[in-house]
Amino acid sequence: MLNVCITCKKSDRISNAEENPIAETATAKPGESLYQALLEKNDSENIKIQPVKCLSACSNGCTVALAGEGRWSYVYGHMDAETDVEDILKGVAAYHKTDDGLVPWRERPVIFRKQVISRMPPMTGAHSSISEK
Amino acid sequence: MLNVCITCKKSDRISNAEENPIAETATAKPGESLYQALLEKNDSENIKIQPVKCLSACSNGCTVALAGEGRWSYVYGHMDAETDVEDILKGVAAYHKTDDGLVPWRERPVIFRKQVISRMPPMTGAHSSISEK
Repeated sequence: MLNVCITCKKSDRISNAEENPIAETATAKPGESLYQALLEKNDSENIKIQPVKCLSACSNGCTVALAGEGRWSYVYGHMDAETDVEDILKGVAAYHKTDDGLVPWRERPVIFRKQVISRMPPMTGAHSSISEK
Repeated sequence: MLNVCITCKKSDRISNAEENPIAETATAKPGESLYQALLEKNDSENIKIQPVKCLSACSNGCTVALAGEGRWSYVYGHMDAETDVEDILKGVAAYHKTDDGLVPWRERPVIFRKQVISRMPPMTGAHSSISEK
Protein backbone atom coordinates (compact mmCIF):
# COMPACT_ATOMS: atom_id res chain seq x y z
CA MET A 1 0.00 0.00 0.00
CA LEU A 2 1.33 3.40 -1.00
CA ASN A 3 -0.27 6.32 0.84
CA VAL A 4 0.12 9.63 -0.94
CA CYS A 5 -0.56 12.89 0.86
CA ILE A 6 -2.86 14.93 -1.37
CA THR A 7 -2.74 18.03 0.83
CA CYS A 8 1.05 18.37 0.67
CA LYS A 9 2.68 21.45 -0.67
CA LYS A 10 6.25 21.19 -1.78
CA SER A 11 8.38 22.38 1.08
CA ASP A 12 10.62 24.36 -1.24
CA ARG A 13 7.56 26.19 -2.55
CA ILE A 14 6.33 27.26 0.86
CA SER A 15 8.92 30.01 0.97
CA ASN A 16 8.46 30.72 -2.71
CA ALA A 17 4.80 31.39 -2.04
CA GLU A 18 5.72 34.32 0.14
CA GLU A 19 7.82 35.79 -2.63
CA ASN A 20 5.41 35.02 -5.40
CA PRO A 21 1.82 34.15 -4.44
CA ILE A 22 0.71 33.90 -8.09
CA ALA A 23 3.25 31.22 -8.95
CA GLU A 24 2.17 29.30 -5.86
CA THR A 25 -1.48 29.37 -6.92
CA ALA A 26 -0.55 27.79 -10.22
CA THR A 27 0.96 24.80 -8.44
CA ALA A 28 -1.22 24.84 -5.38
CA LYS A 29 -1.76 21.10 -5.09
CA PRO A 30 1.53 19.29 -5.69
CA GLY A 31 0.42 16.41 -3.44
CA GLU A 32 -2.70 15.90 -5.53
CA SER A 33 -0.57 16.11 -8.71
CA LEU A 34 1.81 13.49 -7.36
CA TYR A 35 -1.10 11.20 -6.51
CA GLN A 36 -2.59 11.55 -10.01
CA ALA A 37 0.80 10.99 -11.68
CA LEU A 38 1.36 7.83 -9.64
CA LEU A 39 -2.11 6.50 -10.50
CA GLU A 40 -1.48 7.13 -14.19
CA LYS A 41 1.95 5.50 -14.29
CA ASN A 42 1.15 2.51 -12.10
CA ASP A 43 0.54 -0.60 -14.19
CA SER A 44 0.75 -3.17 -11.40
CA GLU A 45 -2.35 -4.62 -9.84
CA ASN A 46 -0.28 -5.46 -6.77
CA ILE A 47 0.40 -1.82 -5.99
CA LYS A 48 -2.47 -0.07 -4.27
CA ILE A 49 -2.27 3.72 -4.12
CA GLN A 50 -4.37 5.52 -1.55
CA PRO A 51 -4.88 9.29 -1.07
CA VAL A 52 -4.36 10.60 2.46
CA LYS A 53 -5.11 13.99 3.90
CA CYS A 54 -1.92 14.89 5.74
CA LEU A 55 0.89 12.66 6.95
CA SER A 56 1.91 15.37 9.46
CA ALA A 57 5.25 15.90 7.79
CA CYS A 58 4.28 19.13 6.05
CA SER A 59 7.70 20.75 6.15
CA ASN A 60 9.02 17.85 4.09
CA GLY A 61 6.35 17.73 1.35
CA CYS A 62 5.48 16.10 -0.91
CA THR A 63 5.24 13.00 1.23
CA VAL A 64 4.33 9.36 0.68
CA ALA A 65 4.09 6.42 3.08
CA LEU A 66 4.67 2.73 2.41
CA ALA A 67 2.82 0.23 4.58
CA GLY A 68 1.78 -3.41 4.54
CA GLU A 69 0.40 -5.99 6.93
CA GLY A 70 3.24 -7.42 9.03
CA ARG A 71 5.81 -5.09 7.46
CA TRP A 72 7.92 -2.15 8.51
CA SER A 73 6.33 1.05 7.24
CA TYR A 74 8.20 4.07 5.88
CA VAL A 75 7.46 7.76 5.34
CA TYR A 76 9.40 9.59 2.61
CA GLY A 77 9.61 13.31 1.92
CA HIS A 78 10.50 15.81 -0.81
CA MET A 79 8.91 13.68 -3.53
CA ASP A 80 8.42 15.37 -6.89
CA ALA A 81 5.58 14.58 -9.32
CA GLU A 82 7.74 15.54 -12.29
CA THR A 83 10.91 13.61 -11.53
CA ASP A 84 10.23 10.88 -8.96
CA VAL A 85 7.17 8.89 -10.05
CA GLU A 86 9.13 6.10 -11.74
CA ASP A 87 11.50 5.66 -8.79
CA ILE A 88 8.64 5.71 -6.27
CA LEU A 89 6.86 2.91 -8.16
CA LYS A 90 10.10 0.90 -8.39
CA GLY A 91 10.53 1.33 -4.64
CA VAL A 92 6.98 0.21 -3.95
CA ALA A 93 7.46 -2.86 -6.18
CA ALA A 94 10.65 -3.82 -4.29
CA TYR A 95 8.83 -3.33 -0.98
CA HIS A 96 5.97 -5.49 -2.20
CA LYS A 97 8.37 -8.37 -2.92
CA THR A 98 9.55 -8.53 0.71
CA ASP A 99 7.78 -10.26 3.57
CA ASP A 100 8.82 -7.73 6.21
CA GLY A 101 9.11 -4.47 4.29
CA LEU A 102 12.89 -4.41 4.64
CA VAL A 103 14.25 -3.94 1.11
CA PRO A 104 18.04 -4.47 0.93
CA TRP A 105 19.69 -1.04 1.05
CA ARG A 106 21.25 -1.15 -2.43
CA GLU A 107 17.93 -2.16 -3.99
CA ARG A 108 16.14 0.91 -2.65
CA PRO A 109 15.78 3.88 -5.02
CA VAL A 110 18.17 6.69 -4.06
CA ILE A 111 15.22 8.94 -3.15
CA PHE A 112 14.10 6.32 -0.61
CA ARG A 113 17.64 5.98 0.81
CA LYS A 114 18.17 9.71 1.17
CA GLN A 115 14.71 11.09 1.85
CA VAL A 116 13.31 8.86 4.59
CA ILE A 117 11.51 10.84 7.31
CA SER A 118 10.73 7.93 9.64
CA ARG A 119 9.96 4.24 9.75
CA MET A 120 7.92 2.09 12.11
CA PRO A 121 8.06 -1.62 13.00
CA PRO A 122 5.23 -4.00 12.11
CA MET A 123 2.55 -4.53 14.73
CA THR A 124 3.22 -8.27 14.81
CA GLY A 125 6.27 -9.86 16.45
CA ALA A 126 8.51 -7.90 18.79
CA HIS A 127 11.54 -9.73 17.36
CA SER A 128 11.34 -7.85 14.09
CA SER A 129 11.46 -4.47 15.79
CA ILE A 130 15.12 -4.86 16.59
CA SER A 131 16.17 -5.39 13.01
CA GLU A 132 19.15 -3.23 12.16
CA LYS A 133 18.58 -3.40 8.43
CA MET B 1 1.85 0.15 21.68
CA LEU B 2 4.64 2.64 22.30
CA ASN B 3 7.80 1.98 20.31
CA VAL B 4 10.88 3.64 21.77
CA CYS B 5 14.06 3.96 19.72
CA ILE B 6 16.90 2.72 21.91
CA THR B 7 19.63 3.69 19.44
CA CYS B 8 18.63 7.36 19.34
CA LYS B 9 21.02 10.06 20.32
CA LYS B 10 19.60 13.41 21.23
CA SER B 11 19.79 15.58 18.16
CA ASP B 12 20.97 18.55 20.20
CA ARG B 13 23.81 16.48 21.59
CA ILE B 14 25.12 15.42 18.22
CA SER B 15 26.72 18.83 17.76
CA ASN B 16 27.69 18.96 21.41
CA ALA B 17 29.66 15.76 20.92
CA GLU B 18 31.95 17.52 18.52
CA GLU B 19 32.63 20.22 21.06
CA ASN B 20 32.91 17.91 24.01
CA PRO B 21 33.40 14.18 23.33
CA ILE B 22 33.71 13.34 27.04
CA ALA B 23 30.30 14.78 27.91
CA GLU B 24 28.80 12.86 25.02
CA THR B 25 30.27 9.58 26.25
CA ALA B 26 28.56 10.10 29.59
CA THR B 27 25.16 10.31 27.92
CA ALA B 28 25.84 8.07 24.99
CA LYS B 29 22.52 6.23 25.01
CA PRO B 30 19.69 8.69 25.57
CA GLY B 31 17.26 6.48 23.64
CA GLU B 32 18.01 3.57 25.95
CA SER B 33 17.65 5.91 28.96
CA LEU B 34 14.28 7.11 27.71
CA TYR B 35 13.11 3.52 27.24
CA GLN B 36 14.18 2.57 30.78
CA ALA B 37 12.57 5.69 32.28
CA LEU B 38 9.28 4.95 30.50
CA LEU B 39 9.32 1.33 31.69
CA GLU B 40 9.91 2.47 35.27
CA LYS B 41 7.18 5.13 35.29
CA ASN B 42 4.53 3.14 33.44
CA ASP B 43 1.98 1.69 35.83
CA SER B 44 -0.67 0.77 33.26
CA GLU B 45 -1.06 -2.78 32.04
CA ASN B 46 -2.74 -1.40 28.94
CA ILE B 47 0.38 0.41 27.80
CA LYS B 48 2.90 -1.82 26.11
CA ILE B 49 6.38 -0.35 25.61
CA GLN B 50 8.65 -1.91 23.04
CA PRO B 51 12.30 -1.13 22.24
CA VAL B 52 13.13 -0.53 18.58
CA LYS B 53 16.48 -0.19 16.89
CA CYS B 54 16.09 2.93 14.78
CA LEU B 55 12.96 4.69 13.60
CA SER B 56 14.99 6.36 10.81
CA ALA B 57 14.42 9.82 12.21
CA CYS B 58 17.89 10.17 13.71
CA SER B 59 18.21 13.92 13.26
CA ASN B 60 15.15 14.34 15.50
CA GLY B 61 16.15 12.04 18.40
CA CYS B 62 15.05 10.86 20.84
CA THR B 63 12.11 9.38 18.99
CA VAL B 64 9.06 7.32 19.92
CA ALA B 65 6.24 5.89 17.81
CA LEU B 66 2.63 5.22 18.77
CA ALA B 67 0.81 2.44 16.94
CA GLY B 68 -2.21 0.21 17.38
CA GLU B 69 -4.32 -2.17 15.30
CA GLY B 70 -6.77 -0.19 13.17
CA ARG B 71 -5.39 3.15 14.36
CA TRP B 72 -3.44 6.05 12.93
CA SER B 73 0.19 5.77 14.00
CA TYR B 74 2.44 8.68 14.98
CA VAL B 75 6.19 9.30 15.23
CA TYR B 76 7.38 11.98 17.66
CA GLY B 77 10.83 13.52 18.01
CA HIS B 78 13.03 15.45 20.45
CA MET B 79 11.75 13.47 23.44
CA ASP B 80 13.71 13.89 26.66
CA ALA B 81 14.11 11.19 29.33
CA GLU B 82 14.43 13.80 32.06
CA THR B 83 11.47 16.04 31.27
CA ASP B 84 9.01 14.24 28.98
CA VAL B 85 8.27 10.79 30.44
CA GLU B 86 5.08 11.81 32.26
CA ASP B 87 3.68 13.61 29.21
CA ILE B 88 4.55 10.74 26.89
CA LEU B 89 2.68 8.27 29.13
CA LYS B 90 -0.33 10.63 29.33
CA GLY B 91 -0.31 10.86 25.54
CA VAL B 92 -0.15 7.09 25.17
CA ALA B 93 -3.05 6.68 27.62
CA ALA B 94 -5.18 9.17 25.64
CA TYR B 95 -4.28 7.32 22.42
CA HIS B 96 -5.24 4.02 24.00
CA LYS B 97 -8.72 5.35 24.80
CA THR B 98 -9.50 6.06 21.15
CA ASP B 99 -10.68 3.57 18.56
CA ASP B 100 -8.84 5.17 15.65
CA GLY B 101 -5.77 6.74 17.25
CA LEU B 102 -7.06 10.28 16.67
CA VAL B 103 -6.87 12.01 20.04
CA PRO B 104 -8.67 15.40 20.06
CA TRP B 105 -6.05 18.11 19.51
CA ARG B 106 -6.48 19.81 22.89
CA GLU B 107 -6.18 16.52 24.73
CA ARG B 108 -2.77 15.79 23.25
CA PRO B 109 0.29 16.69 25.36
CA VAL B 110 2.02 19.78 24.00
CA ILE B 111 5.10 17.73 23.08
CA PHE B 112 2.88 15.56 20.86
CA ARG B 113 1.26 18.61 19.27
CA LYS B 114 4.53 20.35 18.54
CA GLN B 115 6.99 17.52 17.95
CA VAL B 116 5.23 15.21 15.52
CA ILE B 117 7.52 13.97 12.76
CA SER B 118 4.95 12.03 10.75
CA ARG B 119 1.76 10.04 10.99
CA MET B 120 0.29 7.19 8.98
CA PRO B 121 -3.28 5.97 8.40
CA PRO B 122 -4.44 2.58 9.68
CA MET B 123 -4.19 -0.35 7.30
CA THR B 124 -7.91 -1.04 7.52
CA GLY B 125 -10.59 1.11 5.87
CA ALA B 126 -9.68 3.69 3.25
CA HIS B 127 -12.35 6.02 4.65
CA SER B 128 -10.29 6.75 7.72
CA SER B 129 -7.30 7.87 5.70
CA ILE B 130 -9.00 11.08 4.70
CA SER B 131 -9.62 12.22 8.26
CA GLU B 132 -8.62 15.81 8.71
CA LYS B 133 -8.28 15.60 12.46
